[in-house]
Parts: sequence; structure tokens; C-alpha cells
Amino acid sequence: MRETEIVEQIRLQALSGHHDKALIRGIGDDCAIVRPRAGEDLVFTSDFVLEDRHFTLATHSPAAIGEKALARSLSDLAAMGAEPVFCLVSLAAPAKLGGPFVKRFYQGLLRAADRYSISLAGGDLSRFDKVIADVTCCGRVPRGKALLRSGAKAGDRMYVTGKLGAAAHAFAAGRPILPKPRLAAGIELRKLGVSAAIDLSDGLSLDLARLCAASNVSAEIASNRLPVARHATLDEALHGGEDYELLFTAAPQIRIPAAMSEIGVVTRKRPSHVLMDGHPLQSKGFDHFA
Amino acid sequence: MRETEIVEQIRLQALSGHHDKALIRGIGDDCAIVRPRAGEDLVFTSDFVLEDRHFTLATHSPAAIGEKALARSLSDLAAMGAEPVFCLVSLAAPAKLGGPFVKRFYQGLLRAADRYSISLAGGDLSRFDKVIADVTCCGRVPRGKALLRSGAKAGDRMYVTGKLGAAAHAFAAGRPILPKPRLAAGIELRKLGVSAAIDLSDGLSLDLARLCAASNVSAEIASNRLPVARHATLDEALHGGEDYELLFTAAPQIRIPAAMSEIGVVTRKRPSHVLMDGHPLQSKGFDHFA
Repeated sequence: MRETEIVEQIRLQALSGHHDKALIRGIGDDCAIVRPRAGEDLVFTSDFVLEDRHFTLATHSPAAIGEKALARSLSDLAAMGAEPVFCLVSLAAPAKLGGPFVKRFYQGLLRAADRYSISLAGGDLSRFDKVIADVTCCGRVPRGKALLRSGAKAGDRMYVTGKLGAAAHAFAAGRPILPKPRLAAGIELRKLGVSAAIDLSDGLSLDLARLCAASNVSAEIASNRLPVARHATLDEALHGGEDYELLFTAAPQIRIPAAMSEIGVVTRKRPSHVLMDGHPLQSKGFDHFA
Repeated sequence: MRETEIVEQIRLQALSGHHDKALIRGIGDDCAIVRPRAGEDLVFTSDFVLEDRHFTLATHSPAAIGEKALARSLSDLAAMGAEPVFCLVSLAAPAKLGGPFVKRFYQGLLRAADRYSISLAGGDLSRFDKVIADVTCCGRVPRGKALLRSGAKAGDRMYVTGKLGAAAHAFAAGRPILPKPRLAAGIELRKLGVSAAIDLSDGLSLDLARLCAASNVSAEIASNRLPVARHATLDEALHGGEDYELLFTAAPQIRIPAAMSEIGVVTRKRPSHVLMDGHPLQSKGFDHFA
């Protein structure tokens, strides 16, 4: 199958999927064209998924790779409290996997795109000796309302959505699970007026330190408050990556849904210093170049 | 060097570079935040550069790889007649190249970003066994004014900016040259009201067929009108990729700058059928999955 035919198939698949009205022109020209609405900010993020790094061909089907590629990037929109608008998908794959692989990758990606109401607007397609994908997602928020990492204030309470450690535990057991970006929770938290948020992609201990550094605050958390996933260890909940839950902070008077767990408080001690049960918590999350 | 320190270095480098006012928040949060102006459309494109496919570590310095990655993507903005706004850069590199490689890649990319007035807004950084980069560029055009591939009409004249075949010739001689995106030309052509445009990334014969297919027209070109680059062959001018000049069409009454070459006319024969000197011209440009 030639590249032109593959691209045409993807274009037709994309046309039958979710269509955001802001997307004036999708796949088929040099660029996609987007007409922003008045009174909104747009937010943007890009995320890689790389063979033998974020997935293997043994553990992930082509469709699962496509879904994971999109979900990782969508999770960053969730952390901003943004509503998905469109994505650009760059995919490279070995010639021997060819058209069928590409087609199934996009089927998985587009199924997830429909579920999360995001339009596929374009991207790039190339041949390479490994499977690699880079997904750029665009989301919208009312002007000035994006949730930032830098808004946490001393006295705020600290929370996480969902359970922690499930992804690390499943990965260790050889049954990796696909990320579920917390888009609905992100939008709800933005409307509630929480003060700061970050998505947990690299592990609570590292992402918590990042949020504290960005806000120039410190934090104290309690291990017995952590919502550890069933079967997972405390270590997996603290340092395991890829949970894609949201970590956020909110002023004490804000009523947070009961399904979310309060894990500690924001303090004004040494910036980015995190204490758990009164002892310093080391960041052991995933560092690509450590 | 840890990832956090590398990202902080890139953030500081980016801060001292070109800053588009629409970019409210750049590197450092889960997403970049952009505040669109009223009355403008935004255009988006993503392009890979992959080791041993678009460059090798023997022929390209880290800075040249960074510049090429950005320039390839900017060329798509040029084809829409767009003004650059911001880019997201996803880079993966082997751990053994480490921080110094990443730093030099971004130095080259940011030097080019300054030259073309585009802001680095974010991206992703990962470790991988080869060097790969994916650059998403955003540009702006007045509402409804983007140049499309699909606007060519029978009777229009067909033109190219600059010379053709130089990139293929230099590549064959082992001295690859860096793309120079034709952003100023694209904006000028948009203001002149040309009917269609595409950038020549995969070779004139293939990109011309793409423009004709998108516009549902055919074309007749004359070999003696082609602006063949010095030392390059007609074959290199016709089928060589990576010239990154613009191919465009315009109604006969539009005055096109003399530095651009008229190479033929748009006709209404069999759609996407291209004749050169009266004979069918085969598309031999680069197809990733052929």
C-alpha cells in the first residue's frame, strides 16, 4: 500500500469520527486550520510513545499503542482543566509492519478520540526501524482559567483523583493497563476553582515535588491517607509512573467531591521540600536522563 | 545531568529567544497556553526528523538537526501563507549522547526560531536508541485567508519560488544542505491572492500531482521553464525531495514577482494528470511506504 492510499484511509476514518467545529480543515493540506472561539485560551502539549520504552509489540496491540499515545497526551489537557479540541499524530513504523499496522494504530487512536471527543486534524507518517508516535493535543479553557502547577498556596489542602500504584503494579505483573485521562475530573476541578493541578505521569513523589517547585511551596502528606490501588504496594503508589490521575490543591473552603482523596497540606517551609509522616520524601519517579 | 536540569536549561534558553505575545505560558507546566487574537485562523502541522532517514550523525551536527527539524515544519506554514507563532518540540536521544547533545540541538533550533520569529512553547524529552524529533508548528493567517492546495483553477498559471534540485544534488554529493522555509514568500503570495500553494518537500513531480488532485485539475508544464539549480540535473529538479520551495498557482491577471518562475498552466483535463512537454509526467518523489 502506498503512503498516499494509507493517508487517504486515515483521512476517511478521521472524517467519520468526532468533529470539533473549530476545526475548519483537517487532514489533506499542508496544515490543519483552526478557528478559535472568542473568550477562550488554547492549551497545547506533545507526548512521545516509543517502542521498548513506553510499550512493546509483545504487550501492546497496534490499537492499544494508538490509544495509549493519545491518552498520554490527553492527560496533560486534563491537568489544565481543558476540554479536548484536536490532535496531530506523527507515526513512524517499520516497512514490514506496513499499512495494516498503521491502519490498526489509527483505529485504536480514533476509537479513543471519539470517546474523549477530540478530532484528528493531521500529523506525519514515516518509515522507521521502530514504532514511534508523537501526539500533540490542543484543548480549550475559558480565558485565564487554565489550571496551573504554580497556583498552590500555603494552607491549601492536597488531593488526588482515583487510586495510585495500579499502573506500576500491573506493569510489574506483565499486564500493562491503558491510561484513562481524567478529563471530566479536570474540568470539574477547574469549575470548582482549585488552586493548582498536575497529572501523575512520572510518579507521585516526583510530580508532587514538581508542583511544589512550580508553586514555590512545600507539602506534608500522610502515608495512611494515600489511596493505594488494590494489590499495589505503598512504594508503587508513591513512585510508580503512568497512573495518570490528577494531583491538585485547593483552598480549605472548597468542597471537593468525596471520591477524591485528601492526602496532605501545602506548607510554606523550605520550597519543594516534601514531608511524608514527618520525614523527607525522596523523589524516585521516572527521570529520562538520570 | 538530570532531566529536570536539562528542561530548566531549555526553558531559560527559550525565554531569551523570540517571544510571541499570544503565548501566555510556555515551557514549565503540563501544557503551553495560547491566547488567540480576534479575526485570525491558526494553522498547525507536525513533522518528524528521524536519524538515518532525514539525517545522520555523521553529516549533521546536533545544532543542524535542531535547525532542520524546525525548518521542515515551518515550510508547511509557508505553504499556507502563515506567520509563525509557536512550536512544540519532542526530542528523543540516546543516553550516551546525553545532555550536551540535547543542549546543542536546542541551540540550533532556537537560533533558527529567532531567525523565523517563532516561540518555543513546550514539547517532550525522552531517551531512545536513536535521535528522533517531531516538531509541531502553529502559524496565524487572517480569517479565511490560508492558502490551500485545493484552490487551483483551470487557466491559472503555475509557478515555483527559487531553484529546484539543489537539495537532491547536494545530498548525492554528500553535502546535505539545510532547508530554508519560504515564509516571507508565502506571506507575500497570500497577500497577492494566489489560488493554491504547496511546499516542495517530496519532489516537484509528486507534490504537483498532490496539488492537482486536491484541486481536481490537471497541469501542463514545460521542462525548459523549470528553474533547475546550478549543477543539478533535470531529474533532480523534477523528483528530488527537500527543496522546500513553494509551488503555487495564480490567476493570469495577478502580477507575480519576477524572481519566481512560471513553469506551466493549470488545465481541466483528466484530474491529477500532469503533462510535461506534452508527455505524461510520472510522480517519482519520495513515498514512505511504497
